[in-house]
Amino acid sequence: MPPQSELPDIAHACIYLPALALELRDHIPMAGAMKVTVTSFDESGLSLSAPLAPNVNPKRTAFAGSLYSVATLAGWGMVWLLTRALQLDCDIVIQEGTVSYLKPVTKDFNAVCALPDAAEWVRFNTMLRRKGKARIGLSASICEGPNLALRFRGIYAAQAASRSVR
Amino acid sequence: MPPQSELPDIAHACIYLPALALELRDHIPMAGAMKVTVTSFDESGLSLSAPLAPNVNPKRTAFAGSLYSVATLAGWGMVWLLTRALQLDCDIVIQEGTVSYLKPVTKDFNAVCALPDAAEWVRFNTMLRRKGKARIGLSASICEGPNLALRFRGIYAAQAASRSVR
Repeated sequence: MPPQSELPDIAHACIYLPALALELRDHIPMAGAMKVTVTSFDESGLSLSAPLAPNVNPKRTAFAGSLYSVATLAGWGMVWLLTRALQLDCDIVIQEGTVSYLKPVTKDFNAVCALPDAAEWVRFNTMLRRKGKARIGLSASICEGPNLALRFRGIYAAQAASRSVR
Repeated sequence: MPPQSELPDIAHACIYLPALALELRDHIPMAGAMKVTVTSFDESGLSLSAPLAPNVNPKRTAFAGSLYSVATLAGWGMVWLLTRALQLDCDIVIQEGTVSYLKPVTKDFNAVCALPDAAEWVRFNTMLRRKGKARIGLSASICEGPNLALRFRGIYAAQAASRSVR
């Protein structure tokens, strides 16, 4: 495992972006149905996008379940990338989710999961090394233009399946 | 509008079950992709079901986003049915959602939204008559065998579009 750091290693995690895209496409049929794509990963977080058309509700705005799902996947993808960058192959599940719908989403949309803050990351990283499992809280949001449309918070649990990435 | 009651009129609301099924199928593409069906509506609540196959995650259990989406739709369907039974055509949106994932779901699943309690129903019904809009909190759950797998709570807002159902 690489040395412990106070910040996630974004450059290293980026190596795994194509693998994350394949994981979503090949192993989560609903990510395919929602046409979710991995957009970017940098200091501002992990961004996943989805077009409006397959994700509409009866009012022709974005379906609440799709908005939640893409935000949840952004958080899941964040944990997936960061644990891969630690050279850990982890089972990752969401345990708790809280979402506020603030504005309707009327266009194609991006869900951006912010990087964990330094304290949260160090705690997660330390616990994962010591116990082989750890929990982390992550926040994601969906904006339309300048307006915050959705605010999401999820608690994710990661459990190391082995000491090396397959 | 029918006289105000302290309990939702389940028998009357049941008339609209086929229309609810069509609403989900024809106007929410993701409900179609998840293969959601309306199972039953009675004193125990509104039950929606979905098969596991289109809703799996990489661990081959049910995808968190699908579980949330079906629970959310059960709550949305509850408000849809009950406002139709009041002969109101309402726009219904979810404003807040909170979900706890307690056990993995390994089979086809049902999300059951419980009827609102009497006090919540009277408050919602009264406000909807007075103001033409109201909010209501609803709880839904997904069980696998005897085990509670998911606990959901949503706050929904309904706004009357007209005084008669189309």
